[in-house]
Amino acid sequence: MSKRVQVGIIGAGPAGLLLGQLLHKAGIETAILERRSRDYVLGRIRAGVLEQGAVGLLEKAGCGGRLHSEGLVHDGVNLAFDGELHRIDLKDLTGGDSVTVYGQTEVTHDLMDARAQTGAETVYEAENVRPHAFDGESPYLTYDKDGQSHRIDCDFIAGCDGYHGVSRQCAPPDLLQVYERIYPFGWLGLLADVPPANDELVYANSARGFALCSMRSLERSRYYIQCDLSDRVEAWSDEAFWDELRRRLPEDLADSVTTGPSIEKSIAPLRSFVAEPLRFGRLFLCGDAAHIVPPTGAKGLNLAASDVHYLHEALVAYYGDGTQAGLDSYSAAALARVWKAERFSWWFTTMMHLFPDDGPFGQKIQEAELDYLVGSRAASTSLAENYVGLPY
Amino acid sequence: MSKRVQVGIIGAGPAGLLLGQLLHKAGIETAILERRSRDYVLGRIRAGVLEQGAVGLLEKAGCGGRLHSEGLVHDGVNLAFDGELHRIDLKDLTGGDSVTVYGQTEVTHDLMDARAQTGAETVYEAENVRPHAFDGESPYLTYDKDGQSHRIDCDFIAGCDGYHGVSRQCAPPDLLQVYERIYPFGWLGLLADVPPANDELVYANSARGFALCSMRSLERSRYYIQCDLSDRVEAWSDEAFWDELRRRLPEDLADSVTTGPSIEKSIAPLRSFVAEPLRFGRLFLCGDAAHIVPPTGAKGLNLAASDVHYLHEALVAYYGDGTQAGLDSYSAAALARVWKAERFSWWFTTMMHLFPDDGPFGQKIQEAELDYLVGSRAASTSLAENYVGLPY
Repeated sequence: MSKRVQVGIIGAGPAGLLLGQLLHKAGIETAILERRSRDYVLGRIRAGVLEQGAVGLLEKAGCGGRLHSEGLVHDGVNLAFDGELHRIDLKDLTGGDSVTVYGQTEVTHDLMDARAQTGAETVYEAENVRPHAFDGESPYLTYDKDGQSHRIDCDFIAGCDGYHGVSRQCAPPDLLQVYERIYPFGWLGLLADVPPANDELVYANSARGFALCSMRSLERSRYYIQCDLSDRVEAWSDEAFWDELRRRLPEDLADSVTTGPSIEKSIAPLRSFVAEPLRFGRLFLCGDAAHIVPPTGAKGLNLAASDVHYLHEALVAYYGDGTQAGLDSYSAAALARVWKAERFSWWFTTMMHLFPDDGPFGQKIQEAELDYLVGSRAASTSLAENYVGLPY
Repeated sequence: MSKRVQVGIIGAGPAGLLLGQLLHKAGIETAILERRSRDYVLGRIRAGVLEQGAVGLLEKAGCGGRLHSEGLVHDGVNLAFDGELHRIDLKDLTGGDSVTVYGQTEVTHDLMDARAQTGAETVYEAENVRPHAFDGESPYLTYDKDGQSHRIDCDFIAGCDGYHGVSRQCAPPDLLQVYERIYPFGWLGLLADVPPANDELVYANSARGFALCSMRSLERSRYYIQCDLSDRVEAWSDEAFWDELRRRLPEDLADSVTTGPSIEKSIAPLRSFVAEPLRFGRLFLCGDAAHIVPPTGAKGLNLAASDVHYLHEALVAYYGDGTQAGLDSYSAAALARVWKAERFSWWFTTMMHLFPDDGPFGQKIQEAELDYLVGSRAASTSLAENYVGLPY
């Protein structure tokens, strides 16, 4: 079975769905192929802090309604160290910007609903998805579904299929340059239906390791603690998690932690990863397919949105007046912003976590940096402008 | 032979001489014991960039004359990377601050001359200098000179005798905490009587390693290039130095380098080092005796001045109205500023040098950081406020 669209999209995560929706608004026809089921995609627990730019794109995609009614606007973020809580006033320091706490699951849900209303095709549980002939003028996608082989011809292919996806794997190896850093620890996360300990996020540096107090809503909290890569989630009881979390927080804050049974508990490794370039002929990589950040600072979803911003503008321009300039500059433009966010995520991770091999000098440098950071308006502003998101 | 002063100072480098001069101005009697000869102390080639705070202390010490007539006021500093030169406008970003280029040799010379006029005692080539009994109320110093043993009784001892000095070595080992980082490279420096390539300093990041263009005056230049720790200075001809320097600079700047025979050429390792606390009873450590920074950013002499600021104020207060508060808080107050400068020097070193073990990801992060830094007013301001010196 065969059909034709203008843009074939691999992956129905937030990157693929947002791109599809923005292209639909511009009258460009898309098909999305997703290896997993709809419920599997929705079940993935991910970050929940949206930059202003990402919020703007979701509005443009027609998905601003529930985001604005249920999302929590945060004008500040907090750093905890040496037993004290220090607030970074994002709104004041950036001249009016803030972030919105709204879970990735909710973003995906809204985008799926919006797409369903457009009637555009999304194929879930598409097996053996593969991009072809993207080095020429007539690329196409193939996949299997319900025992049948399918082909979708298109003008362009967007690879929005994540770190483990097929898109980057199909890029010519001799053109692909990869940059990577693995961190010597993981994050143990716990989700629980309890009110958050603080009304804004708290990133905590402590001699026992990093901890993060975050939330999905006023009734659902998400906490993380730095753990060993060798730790197994089964070995962490809820009680052990809550105890360790509180030991890493200033006393007042620890006393404000409401505990409760976990809904979800998992360990994730931390990694920095960038593949360059983002374009191979008529194949364009977006989001996690090309780059991963450690979760400190919540840049993953926001970087996917940033890529989608550059790519959808380039495609809309191309279908508008035939200009190729945006497509030609996509990789460089998107990567310039990716690297700045990679730097921020690496820096924030490095400053906040315990690095056992760095020794006492490393710990003192962290304390000096945090001490300087909260006392200097320039340094606080630098953190704030990165946290709310650098301009596209 | 025996005598008595109020404050015994070990070391006639800039820290000891500046402290002596500031105490003299307040009517406090000092003696300085120096292991080396006057000419040896003056012959040491060191940094030449003074923060505003250090300039203010030298003025207060009565040594502002030649500093202001011969020193070069720099309102900016430059970063070179990716073939381009980027200026950081220190004056604009900090609201009026700048740095003064004036060699440490000149500072020392002026302080020696000023001290000679006061008639205060300075003993050069004092052998076997040793502080005693500083855990009690009646400390004293002993030394040998011309075959005779001498003793100086005093109220307090200031250890201004550098990293290899006796003061820190006499601190009780069980009270001393040491923090250290060794960098995997050195600086090869060359001094020549040629006009500088640029009228302000240039710190250059390149794929071949770091380079620094600096100067002592409009006719005397000081250049540095990152080198291997295994390099021997004898193996570097002047010609090889100039060639390598120019390869690490943007083309226009490389073309502006005037070469000439070296007056001095040497290799120095890079080290971060802090000993805590800075006080042991009636013994106070100042400057290099307690802390070393890598030379990137030229904080060494400025940190010595910063320690002297806190210590002389504490001693003047003590002799004024008997208050011990300043003496009691000296270590914590001086160390808070020391650690911020240690952080800055570590950060600036890390961003500008080639770290072979960091691989391609590390190099890309450096480029992203530099790119962000010169494009963000907040980040530029953070660099600028550290470069001109954080407030005392």
